[in-house]
Amino acid sequence: MSSIQDHLFDTEFLDQSLQYLGEVLNLQVTIQDSDGQAVLTQGQPGGRASRFYPFSFSQDIGGLTCTAADQEALAACEPHIAYCLAALNSQLAREEELRETSEEMLALSSQLNFLSKVARKIIGVEDLEECYQIILQEISLAINADQSLIHTRGRWDDEVEVRLNITREEEAALLECDCLRRRQDTGHPIICTLDNGKSLLYLPIREKDNRISGRMFFLRPANQRQFTAYEKKFVGIIENIISPTFETLRLYDSLQDLYLNTVKALAAAIDAKDEYTHGHSFRVAKYAVTIGRQLMLSGKELNDLEIAAYMHDLGKIGISESILGKPGKLTNEEFFHIQQHPVFTDKILQPIHLANHIIQGAIQHHERLDGTGYPMGLSGPEISLFGRIIAVADVFDALTSKRPYRDAMPVETALKILCNDVDKQFDRNVVLALLQALQDNVPGSEFSEVSNTLKFDALQNLNLFLKELTEFVATPPAGRGRTV
Amino acid sequence: MSSIQDHLFDTEFLDQSLQYLGEVLNLQVTIQDSDGQAVLTQGQPGGRASRFYPFSFSQDIGGLTCTAADQEALAACEPHIAYCLAALNSQLAREEELRETSEEMLALSSQLNFLSKVARKIIGVEDLEECYQIILQEISLAINADQSLIHTRGRWDDEVEVRLNITREEEAALLECDCLRRRQDTGHPIICTLDNGKSLLYLPIREKDNRISGRMFFLRPANQRQFTAYEKKFVGIIENIISPTFETLRLYDSLQDLYLNTVKALAAAIDAKDEYTHGHSFRVAKYAVTIGRQLMLSGKELNDLEIAAYMHDLGKIGISESILGKPGKLTNEEFFHIQQHPVFTDKILQPIHLANHIIQGAIQHHERLDGTGYPMGLSGPEISLFGRIIAVADVFDALTSKRPYRDAMPVETALKILCNDVDKQFDRNVVLALLQALQDNVPGSEFSEVSNTLKFDALQNLNLFLKELTEFVATPPAGRGRTV
Repeated sequence: MSSIQDHLFDTEFLDQSLQYLGEVLNLQVTIQDSDGQAVLTQGQPGGRASRFYPFSFSQDIGGLTCTAADQEALAACEPHIAYCLAALNSQLAREEELRETSEEMLALSSQLNFLSKVARKIIGVEDLEECYQIILQEISLAINADQSLIHTRGRWDDEVEVRLNITREEEAALLECDCLRRRQDTGHPIICTLDNGKSLLYLPIREKDNRISGRMFFLRPANQRQFTAYEKKFVGIIENIISPTFETLRLYDSLQDLYLNTVKALAAAIDAKDEYTHGHSFRVAKYAVTIGRQLMLSGKELNDLEIAAYMHDLGKIGISESILGKPGKLTNEEFFHIQQHPVFTDKILQPIHLANHIIQGAIQHHERLDGTGYPMGLSGPEISLFGRIIAVADVFDALTSKRPYRDAMPVETALKILCNDVDKQFDRNVVLALLQALQDNVPGSEFSEVSNTLKFDALQNLNLFLKELTEFVATPPAGRGRTV
Repeated sequence: MSSIQDHLFDTEFLDQSLQYLGEVLNLQVTIQDSDGQAVLTQGQPGGRASRFYPFSFSQDIGGLTCTAADQEALAACEPHIAYCLAALNSQLAREEELRETSEEMLALSSQLNFLSKVARKIIGVEDLEECYQIILQEISLAINADQSLIHTRGRWDDEVEVRLNITREEEAALLECDCLRRRQDTGHPIICTLDNGKSLLYLPIREKDNRISGRMFFLRPANQRQFTAYEKKFVGIIENIISPTFETLRLYDSLQDLYLNTVKALAAAIDAKDEYTHGHSFRVAKYAVTIGRQLMLSGKELNDLEIAAYMHDLGKIGISESILGKPGKLTNEEFFHIQQHPVFTDKILQPIHLANHIIQGAIQHHERLDGTGYPMGLSGPEISLFGRIIAVADVFDALTSKRPYRDAMPVETALKILCNDVDKQFDRNVVLALLQALQDNVPGSEFSEVSNTLKFDALQNLNLFLKELTEFVATPPAGRGRTV
């Protein structure tokens, strides 16, 4: 059912026309819809001669019936009615054109608004996956999809996948569906309805060389309408315009990885100078990140902490091998010299535009909360969080590793030493985080290096032991005995 | 001068109206433009009663004059003419609306097309300035500006400036112009006409925290029309949508800088272990980049070359200090051990995802074209360009620096040694590039370390000397004596 009233937004001219037909031509006029139902009537009733004039439009919208006193009167009005009909038809044609253009304009305008909104959301985002997450969420919201997925190339040609409400099994099933298998190679976006009734929108992701390097999927529930060609085009334009940001983030991500790995490689080379510190920086970084994760640090903070940990012994480049590798006891002078390695680290790192918290983390691992550490003798709040974390990680690895003058300690002994020095040397929360991490991870990969030093009994009773230690550390000094 | 014909794209209905007035109402009808000139006439001439009906439109477009046989006939037609005029006026209103909407749609569509085009151009661009250059060019082309400028924050809060056809003096004058000084603080885009008649479009650049961090200028010549509000909006939208790419490139740029500086700092720390190699890597990197620039390497290649040069002695971490710093002659065994430092460099760098040409540059600087170098004994084309450049830079610095067993050589002696070993040890083009760089730069900053070793006579006659050497090197071995 449709009538001229549904298609003329501006009905003023329709009113003028009805008034003209009724008052000037003295006709009774009835507007009828496509079902023949009268929707508007104008003028005097009681005429005997009638005629129906359909509107000329892209679809059936009915027409108007003119009734005059008699056939002669109706015939006299015919030319005027014909002109009136021509005017209404022309008006309808213009209005239809206007509506189509307006809709197209609104669509383009909403695309630009969408792009501006997304640009504001992703500006300054440093992580590729986080950026994908935002894009998926925003597009899904815009096209009313309830499941979505991006699968594409990350740093070093590895793969990045971000999924919203979609399982791996569902993704595998998607890739096997007929419409994708038949048409995915064409490299064009695809819309289809899956066997389970869901509507699928598939979009290949291209890089600058036009090579397809990934895909996006959007799914809409079975009880809703299919995706439209417009929505397909919309997603394509968005992806196209945002892709330089993705590409640049990918570069940035790769370089971050390169930076971390370069620092790691150099730290390993410095450790390797002394057979007793072989692998030390690697383990310290691993323990530090594990502790940091327990302390709920963000991904970016963990990355910075890892860099700081790899850098904590860089200054040993400046310490003579003869002192570093000396098997017996060091002289006071030699010990003082070794204590300068954080100063050397600082000297190496100062000319670099490295974030301050990274440098602090790298040079404060021999400071003690009670102020008796070195090289600065900082105390309490002067020591940064990264410094506190790396201090615990460093000592934990030193104690559980072999030294020229002693064997590697069992992990329980090492932990007892750490726990006894809480508040004096170590930060209470950092030690608690290490204990918690051990409870969660031993004998997992984070502590693979120490788990084989655990005695069988200790491994059996480890959780009990760790709980006891945790309780000990968590109790303020006043309420406990001197040592465990 | 304007008439209804200029404002009705579809003139079919106008024809129908004229036909109705002429044939049905028996009127003579004349369409008049805003100057009162007849532009169309329809129907029988010779009537005596006339009336002018102006069209109702946003501007004066004239109207129509109806002429009937007499006043009575005209009066009888009045209601029909009134309806006809209402139909034409309504048509005009719709057409105007349609034209405005279409123009707006075309504008939006061209913005989206522009964004797509720019996205394709900047995808994969790794350099912030290059990216700005592209954006400036594309926007200038789109809005018909012949001078433009971006001035904004680069890495580490330093400044980046890209200019097209605009001098520093012109920029300074712009910043002093009244309209900018009065309104720049409002943080909004500005259009104004300068005293010299040029039209200026100013756009502040904002970052994610909404802080203004830069500005864009576009200028249009004095003999052309002013920038429009639409062009101002257009540039604003483009800048807004592209800004995440800028922001990410800025991050990438900063990290590249951090990477280079970290490698440089570590190289300096390794050099510092031996008083005789203090500053060596820094100078080798400087000479290598100077040679690379003579060889027309790109900015990206020079950056990679600099990294490779800083890394060329990393492997010395693995060499014992007692051998590195030994004042007397080395034993065969010690010499073999020292020759392993590129192997250690390779071992350190292999686990990193570093581009192959960087690793090759770092580990091939002791290879010789005749195959008698170390550690691999590579010959001729097996040695990479970076390896050849760093070999020359390394030996040039070693010869012009003091060693435990000899003084620093004068630069002429060092150059003669290099020149005599062209084709055996060194690449001819690389040595020529060094000679050319010396001719261009001594006593400039690139060679500040060696220029004070030049004897006064040599400095006076340097260009002559360098030209002679250049000629010697440029001559194939068959055509010259054995040595210089």
